[in-house]
Amino acid sequence: MTFDITAAVNIMGLAAVAVFAVSGALDAARQKMDILGFMLIGTATGVGGGTLRDVLLGKMPVFWIREPIWIVICLTASAITYFIAPRLASRTRALIWMDAVGLALFSVVGTKVALDFGVSPLIAICMGVMSASFGGIARDVLCGSNLTLMNEELYITTTLAGAIVYLVLRQLDVGSNYDLIGGFLVAFILRALAILFNIKLPNAYRNS
Amino acid sequence: MTFDITAAVNIMGLAAVAVFAVSGALDAARQKMDILGFMLIGTATGVGGGTLRDVLLGKMPVFWIREPIWIVICLTASAITYFIAPRLASRTRALIWMDAVGLALFSVVGTKVALDFGVSPLIAICMGVMSASFGGIARDVLCGSNLTLMNEELYITTTLAGAIVYLVLRQLDVGSNYDLIGGFLVAFILRALAILFNIKLPNAYRNS
Amino acid sequence: MTFDITAAVNIMGLAAVAVFAVSGALDAARQKMDILGFMLIGTATGVGGGTLRDVLLGKMPVFWIREPIWIVICLTASAITYFIAPRLASRTRALIWMDAVGLALFSVVGTKVALDFGVSPLIAICMGVMSASFGGIARDVLCGSNLTLMNEELYITTTLAGAIVYLVLRQLDVGSNYDLIGGFLVAFILRALAILFNIKLPNAYRNS
Repeated sequence: MTFDITAAVNIMGLAAVAVFAVSGALDAARQKMDILGFMLIGTATGVGGGTLRDVLLGKMPVFWIREPIWIVICLTASAITYFIAPRLASRTRALIWMDAVGLALFSVVGTKVALDFGVSPLIAICMGVMSASFGGIARDVLCGSNLTLMNEELYITTTLAGAIVYLVLRQLDVGSNYDLIGGFLVAFILRALAILFNIKLPNAYRNS
Repeated sequence: MTFDITAAVNIMGLAAVAVFAVSGALDAARQKMDILGFMLIGTATGVGGGTLRDVLLGKMPVFWIREPIWIVICLTASAITYFIAPRLASRTRALIWMDAVGLALFSVVGTKVALDFGVSPLIAICMGVMSASFGGIARDVLCGSNLTLMNEELYITTTLAGAIVYLVLRQLDVGSNYDLIGGFLVAFILRALAILFNIKLPNAYRNS
Repeated sequence: MTFDITAAVNIMGLAAVAVFAVSGALDAARQKMDILGFMLIGTATGVGGGTLRDVLLGKMPVFWIREPIWIVICLTASAITYFIAPRLASRTRALIWMDAVGLALFSVVGTKVALDFGVSPLIAICMGVMSASFGGIARDVLCGSNLTLMNEELYITTTLAGAIVYLVLRQLDVGSNYDLIGGFLVAFILRALAILFNIKLPNAYRNS
């Protein structure tokens, strides 16, 4: 129940939640919502993945009820986005990059929380992928957008890579949070390259 | 676990669930569903918000499994709506007003349940807003409609106002359920005025 | 917590999860997703209904965290579908029939699990209908498809029939899993006839 702001997993978690909240708020901007709409969509996007993770594991009340700091982060990030978004050259571009950072952070943090809970490695990877994807799914459903995870450049691949790299580094016991940072870097660089160079998995269906 | 039908919070809760079920059934009417479709959508809309609230708080089994009366209310209200809806001059208009009543009721009931559970005021307000909005979100997603909470006249503002007014009145200890009634009235009147006079929050994005 | 692979309810459950996973993967094929997309949508469709059931009942961690075999089944079925789907004459037709088998299986399995948990018959039927419908709802929302449960031939009716027939046979104590098989057969035959002969419930709204 105690919240250690200096722990790497919490710093990365707070950053993940904040950037996902910003991505949600940017989607609210595309829908021309008012400031409360920004805060609702931003908060749902920011805490959505972790909430699903806690519910599936049975860690209730969910994390942001136990530690309201998470909600404060989301509300603040969304409200700031409301005032900054009009100055952005491309809100869609900003949304994609915020989403990419959050995705990479969540894939390692989600996997770590599940492993610490005592689940098997296979389930931990599934939880990492799910908790990283679900915030964006909630955002897209609430905004009526096309789902970002579909037809996207290495989107699910990114979360899978982050989860697996973290898991392997953790088993190797590299220590002192290098496992978290390593998983994040691999996932983020993979997604960044995919966005910049439009890389996709080979797919027998795309041209059919 | 005992259910006191004379308690104000339960009367308001039953009314909220019933009018939300009717709003869900009216949306099913727009989609030309059969009577079982009415009952499924109506029930999901009616109990959706409270179910999310219970799951997030960890109050399981959720309320309608503990007290099946809630499901009976939803099924009955939805089935009656199936036979009455064809006689309505405007189903969309009826849906909006049913939704407004449910929204105002849920915003105070959801906040009260969360406060009684022992969460902080900030989280209680979030739970009030979420539980009031989620039934409508479930309805709109299930029916493939545009989300009512988007671009709408003071929709989220209404739930926030209901939750805050209830919270303040409760802190002031006005007693004997005046806090619940006060929160409901402020929320409902605000939303009614917004619907009637098309009032919206100032929004830098609307004309951009 | 122990998993008895020879129990009829587990055999039927595994079959239900597998065919729902295939139906999800076939929807991913229509959306031209890559193999990881197939596995994500297939798994969400396969375990979605049972996950909702466990969460509402408060049986956490949910079943596939307790018994990872369910996830292995979904991932395998989805991956196999990725390679088989291009050879199918009609993916939409295959999806509808896989969905029909899963629907009939889930309606009895969901009702049984809820009854074994100790809920009332009314709630058990609701849980059967919900757990049978929710996998398909998750699939359709994730794929951006129209909801299969809407405007469909006896879709909700099927789940209701399966749940009620199972409940009655169980009360009659026909024994040795004949109740599960009876419920499944009634539900599947009803849905099959509805698909083949385009049978729908009488509906006052359809022609209005």
